[in-house]
Amino acid sequence: MMKIDVLSLFPEMFKGVLHSSIMKKAQENEAVTFKVTDFRDFSGNKHHKVDDYPYGGGAGMVLKPEPLFAAVESLALDESKKPRVILMCPQGERFNQQKAEELSKEEHLVFLCGHYEGYDERIREYLVTDEISLGDFVLTGGEIASMAIIDSVVRLLPNVLGNTDSPVHDSFSTGLLEHPQYTRPADFRGMKVPDVLLSGNHAEIEKWRQEQSLKRTFKRRKDLLVDAPLTEHQQAYLKQLRNEEK
Amino acid sequence: MMKIDVLSLFPEMFKGVLHSSIMKKAQENEAVTFKVTDFRDFSGNKHHKVDDYPYGGGAGMVLKPEPLFAAVESLALDESKKPRVILMCPQGERFNQQKAEELSKEEHLVFLCGHYEGYDERIREYLVTDEISLGDFVLTGGEIASMAIIDSVVRLLPNVLGNTDSPVHDSFSTGLLEHPQYTRPADFRGMKVPDVLLSGNHAEIEKWRQEQSLKRTFKRRKDLLVDAPLTEHQQAYLKQLRNEEK
Repeated sequence: MMKIDVLSLFPEMFKGVLHSSIMKKAQENEAVTFKVTDFRDFSGNKHHKVDDYPYGGGAGMVLKPEPLFAAVESLALDESKKPRVILMCPQGERFNQQKAEELSKEEHLVFLCGHYEGYDERIREYLVTDEISLGDFVLTGGEIASMAIIDSVVRLLPNVLGNTDSPVHDSFSTGLLEHPQYTRPADFRGMKVPDVLLSGNHAEIEKWRQEQSLKRTFKRRKDLLVDAPLTEHQQAYLKQLRNEEK
Repeated sequence: MMKIDVLSLFPEMFKGVLHSSIMKKAQENEAVTFKVTDFRDFSGNKHHKVDDYPYGGGAGMVLKPEPLFAAVESLALDESKKPRVILMCPQGERFNQQKAEELSKEEHLVFLCGHYEGYDERIREYLVTDEISLGDFVLTGGEIASMAIIDSVVRLLPNVLGNTDSPVHDSFSTGLLEHPQYTRPADFRGMKVPDVLLSGNHAEIEKWRQEQSLKRTFKRRKDLLVDAPLTEHQQAYLKQLRNEEK
């Protein structure tokens, strides 16, 4: 069973997410346990101070090393193997599905969530094993970013996703973007489902889906085409798309 | 005041995040109002069904168009301007700080959060104005991704971030990654703060920070160097880094 610890100054933020939907089910199925800890409890000083002014001056506050080192150590007291200690920050490596799969094989993940403040560099250098970024945008804290990582990792654990929950078609599993999907009604306010999908001709439907998947990827994410394995039909269709673009 | 609506089948997921920290403050300061609506209430059928089998066959379920069209229409009844209707999905454009700034200028944002299921293509084509992706990884639903967008947008609204909350140095504001920060103690278990930061020599500190910021960007995110405006000192230091790499 995977153990996930979160260190945050706003533990209440996690209430909704960790106890709904797939996360709830993952805990019930004993695939994972979550614990959210307020690292202010590890401040080690009577004013419960966890941050301080930056050396060398400048605006803003910096998270002190002592509380986070002490908190992480208390969480892994009985473990022979060190946990993966993950810091969410814009300086980190970009998160992707490969990283989610890598993390899903660990026994113990610890997420450090700062809020507004910077981190004392010694935290990054000596405590953290992975600095991860969701992308080139600024969040108020590491909490929501951690939730995203946790969700993407937990859904990969055994006994979490049942058949009924599995996505129509996981994006990236074919290397291409997903083709369009339609369901009833066939005519909604004059917006119609393509005839081919109503035809019952499975070979034609498969061909249409392969084309649409390729077309969407061609329009939106050409970078994915470099590595995507294409069917013979898709290779021919790609030539056609390239000619049309000229 | 910005109006943010979220349509989700798991409204309880938003409880923690929308009522803590900066989000709480933003509502108190009347910068934003949030409403989370369960779009199952708009199913329009007695079984409260919001999804159905995909036309043409295949695994998984697809969200029907009627409930989401009806829900969005009910939320923007009295508005002359159509709201931005945002769908979080891996096929969308990659979210970044520029997109956050663009969205922060809107009056009304509506987030559609699917869960496991695919979306009927007519939702994407005729209802949604923006398809946004957080990155190349799979989440169970759009909820956590929406929280990330909402957080990054709301913190840009007027009267939300006070001086005490402002980040040490917003990443990306200089075009480079942030330099290391240190705070007390100067010696923590033998891990020491660099001497220059304790020197009191502000010119030297500024020079060190510029170098460190550049060095970190050079090591981790060379792509950012293309557009980053560098000081004269940084340009010289970059040459040195490039020589060292050879």
